[in-house]
Amino acid sequence: MTEQDGSGLLRNPKISAVGIQLLSDAIRDQGTAVADAAWQPPRDGLALSLSQIAADQRRVNANQQAVQAMIEARPEVVGVTTAHQALGLERRQFLHSGPPISWQNASGPLRGALVGALLLEGEAADADEAWQLCEANEIELLPCHSRGAVGPMAGVISSSMSLYEVRDEVNQQVAYSNLNEGLGKVLRMGAYSPEVIDRLRWINSRLAPILSEAFARQGPFDVRALLAQSLQMGDEGHNRNRAGSALFLREMSSSIAQCDVSSAEISQVFDFINGNEHFVLNMVMPAAKASADAARNIPGSTMVVAMARNGTEFGIQVSGAGDQWFTAPANTPEGILFPGFSDKDINPDIGDSTIMETYGIGGFAMACAPAIVRFVGGSVELAHQKTHQMYEITLAENPHLQIASLDFRGTPTGIDVAKVVSTQILPAVNTGMAGKEAGTGQVGAGLVEPPMSCFEQALVAVAETGDSA
Amino acid sequence: MTEQDGSGLLRNPKISAVGIQLLSDAIRDQGTAVADAAWQPPRDGLALSLSQIAADQRRVNANQQAVQAMIEARPEVVGVTTAHQALGLERRQFLHSGPPISWQNASGPLRGALVGALLLEGEAADADEAWQLCEANEIELLPCHSRGAVGPMAGVISSSMSLYEVRDEVNQQVAYSNLNEGLGKVLRMGAYSPEVIDRLRWINSRLAPILSEAFARQGPFDVRALLAQSLQMGDEGHNRNRAGSALFLREMSSSIAQCDVSSAEISQVFDFINGNEHFVLNMVMPAAKASADAARNIPGSTMVVAMARNGTEFGIQVSGAGDQWFTAPANTPEGILFPGFSDKDINPDIGDSTIMETYGIGGFAMACAPAIVRFVGGSVELAHQKTHQMYEITLAENPHLQIASLDFRGTPTGIDVAKVVSTQILPAVNTGMAGKEAGTGQVGAGLVEPPMSCFEQALVAVAETGDSA
Repeated sequence: MTEQDGSGLLRNPKISAVGIQLLSDAIRDQGTAVADAAWQPPRDGLALSLSQIAADQRRVNANQQAVQAMIEARPEVVGVTTAHQALGLERRQFLHSGPPISWQNASGPLRGALVGALLLEGEAADADEAWQLCEANEIELLPCHSRGAVGPMAGVISSSMSLYEVRDEVNQQVAYSNLNEGLGKVLRMGAYSPEVIDRLRWINSRLAPILSEAFARQGPFDVRALLAQSLQMGDEGHNRNRAGSALFLREMSSSIAQCDVSSAEISQVFDFINGNEHFVLNMVMPAAKASADAARNIPGSTMVVAMARNGTEFGIQVSGAGDQWFTAPANTPEGILFPGFSDKDINPDIGDSTIMETYGIGGFAMACAPAIVRFVGGSVELAHQKTHQMYEITLAENPHLQIASLDFRGTPTGIDVAKVVSTQILPAVNTGMAGKEAGTGQVGAGLVEPPMSCFEQALVAVAETGDSA
Repeated sequence: MTEQDGSGLLRNPKISAVGIQLLSDAIRDQGTAVADAAWQPPRDGLALSLSQIAADQRRVNANQQAVQAMIEARPEVVGVTTAHQALGLERRQFLHSGPPISWQNASGPLRGALVGALLLEGEAADADEAWQLCEANEIELLPCHSRGAVGPMAGVISSSMSLYEVRDEVNQQVAYSNLNEGLGKVLRMGAYSPEVIDRLRWINSRLAPILSEAFARQGPFDVRALLAQSLQMGDEGHNRNRAGSALFLREMSSSIAQCDVSSAEISQVFDFINGNEHFVLNMVMPAAKASADAARNIPGSTMVVAMARNGTEFGIQVSGAGDQWFTAPANTPEGILFPGFSDKDINPDIGDSTIMETYGIGGFAMACAPAIVRFVGGSVELAHQKTHQMYEITLAENPHLQIASLDFRGTPTGIDVAKVVSTQILPAVNTGMAGKEAGTGQVGAGLVEPPMSCFEQALVAVAETGDSA
C-alpha cells in the first residue's frame, strides 16, 4: 500500500511520478507528443491504483502477451450451426448483448427483440402473450459473452437461430454470432412484426443451409484476411462493411452457385447479400471475439477483452480481472437519423459490436473510412485525429490490419485501461442506433463514447490483484 | 497574326502577358498557388500558339462545353455484342490500341496479339502461318478509336470477339470494348499460346452469352455509379479495379445465377470474375470513351478527348482539332516487375486504357489508391501530390467522382493542352507493362508519362484554327 498524507495527496515522490511515466510510455509508443490538454490528473483513489499498476512487475509482459495473442489470432468461419446445437440453448433461454440484465431493467429494443424471439420460437402466439411471459419471469436471460457469442444491437440469440461458427486455430478459440438480417425493421433493432419473424424463418430454413453447404465446399473462410482487405477499401469494420460484404460475396459466389437447390433460391441468397452492406458484420464480430478471448485471464494485464452494451448499461471486461463486468449507464449515440425520427427516439448505446473497437478497428480505424465522419458532419482530418488519439490508449499496432491513408500504419490495438484513465481519452465507438420504443427498429447510425467509470473501476480491480495492493 | 521581332521574341506586351494569364486562370480554378518551379517559359513557337489560344474568343466556352459534356455523361453497359455485328469487322480486319500503325512498325506485344487473333479467327493454322500473313500485309489494321472502341494494352479486337456495348443516353454516345481475360499470359499483353486462345474461345462461347443474358435481365448497368463507389474504396479505375470488380459481381450475382445454363457453368463464371481483379476495366474504359466522345469536335476547345498508345507511339486527340492524332515515341513505364523479368523486358507504353486519365481518373485519382504508389516505393503523400498536380492541368472537378481522402473533392477532369504546355506538367498515367517480345504476356505494372511533344503539337493545331491564326 502506498502512503498518502492527510490531504489525500500522495507523499511518495516515486509514486507521484508514475502518472507521468505512463504518459511518457504512451509518447514513446507513438513517436508523437501527447497534447497537454488531453490529460487531467486522475482522482486520488485512481492515482493510487495507477501507481499500483505502474509498480506491478507483471504488467508489461502481461499486456504484451494479451495484445500479441489477440493480434496473432487468425479467426476463420468454419461453418453454420444452431444456438441449440452449439451452445445448448433451450427454448426459453435467450442470449442478449452487453453485461447481464433483467427484463425489468431492459430497454425498449432489447424487450422488442425478446418478444420477437419468443414468437420465432413458437413460445407465444402473439406479442401480448410474449410480453406477459417476460413480465412473469418465464424466460432466462444470459449475456452472449457468457456463452462464447456476440450479437449486434439487442443481440438476442434464441435456441433455433442459425449461428456462424468462427474458430482460431492459433489460440484454439471459438466464437459464434447469428446471421445479419439487413437494416431497418429487424429483430436486433427491437422490431418484431410478422415481416421480421418471416425473414428470420427464411434465414434459418433457406439462407443458413445454403451458406452451410457453401462453407463446407469452400473450406475455412479467413476473416482476418477479409478485414485486412476491406480496411483498405473504405471500411472500418463496424459501421461500414460495404467492401467486406462485397468481397465475401465475390469469394463465395462460386461455392454458393454450386449448392443443390433451385437457381431461384440461389438467386434469392445473392439478392439478400447484395442488399445488405452489413452482411459480414456478424462474421467479423465473432472473429474479433475469438481473437480477444485469447487475451483473457492473464494476471496483471490491464487490457480490455470486451466492451459491450445492453441498451441500459455499458460494460467492459479486462484480461487481469477474469469475467467480472465493470458497468455504468450507457450514453446515447449522436449521428444521422433516418427520416421520420428525432433525437428523442434514440435508445442508449446497445450491442456487442463494440467487440470491433476492442479488437482495434471500428471507431479506432476511422482513418480508413472518411465516409463515416462525413455522415456526422466531420472532415477527413477528424477521422485521422480519432485514429491518432486511439494510438494513445492502446498497447500495439496490428501489422495484419493496416491503414492505407496513414502510410500503412497498423491499427491501434489493445485498449489499456491504465492509459485510458491516465490520458482521459475514451475509446471512439461507431454504432447503429436503435429506436427507444420496442418494435421500432433502426433509427440511424452515429458515434458514441463509453462512460469513463467502467475503465476506472476496471483499473482499480486489476490494481487490487497485484502484490503491491 | 501576332508580331515578333527578329529575335523571335514577342514584341506585343499584351501578348507577352498571356502566359501569365493562363497561369492565373489555373490558380483561380484551383484556389491554390502554382509552384513557380513548375513553370518554364515555353519555346517561341509555342508562346505564339499560347497567345493565340488565350486570345481565342471561343476558348473558355468551348472548353466548358467540352468538359461539362464529358462530366454529365452517364454511360451504362446495355449488353454484349460482337465486333462483327456491332462494328462490321471482317475476318482479316483487326482493331488495335493507340494511333494508327503498320505491322512493320508494330511492337512485340501488338504483333503477338495479332498472331493470336488470327489463330482465334481460324485464319492461320499456327503462329508461323499467322506471322507470314502479317508480313505479307494480308491483314488490315485500324485504331480502336476510329471505330468507337477502346482496347487495353495491345487492344486487338477481331471479328468474332464479344464486346460490351456501352451507351450514354445523356449525350447519345456509344462505345465498345472486348472482355477482360485476366492477368499474365493473355492476348492483350501479346501472348498467343494455346491456353490464351482457349480462354478467348471460352469467353466468346460461354462467358459472353451468360453475361448477355444477365444484362438483359438486370437492365442497363450504371458504370459511373460503379466508379463513384469504387473510387471511395481504394480503386483509381485504371490499375486498380478490385472494388469495382467486386461490386460488379455483387450487383450482377443474382442475374447471373438465374441464367439458363448448368450450375457448373454459372460457377465457372463466378470463379473467373472472382479471379480477375481487373474484370471491370473493359467496362469502365468504353464508359470513359463514350463520355469523352461527347466532347469531340467543339471548335476552339483545347481539351484532350483521347490519349492512347500503340506500343510504339503515344498519341492524343483534342476536341478542337477533329480526329487528328498528335503523336510522339512512347516512353517506357517504370514500376514493379513480375518475378523473372528485368527492365529490358518492358515494352514501351501501350494501350487505350489512358482513356481513364483522359476521363480524369487512373493516375489523376491516385489519391484514391495509395496502394498503387506503395507498389512503386512511393508514399501516400506522393499519391496526393500527383492528384494535386493534375488539378493544375485540368478544366474542372467532376462532382460525380469524388476523392474521399481530399475531403470529397471532385476528380481533376478535362486535360487542357494549353495548361499542360504552359505549366509543363504532364498527365500522370498508371499502366500495365507488356513484355517487349511477342508472346511474353504481362511483365508488371507501373507509372509512365506521355511525351510533351503530343501536347505541343495539339496546341499549335488548335491555335491555327482560331481567327487570330
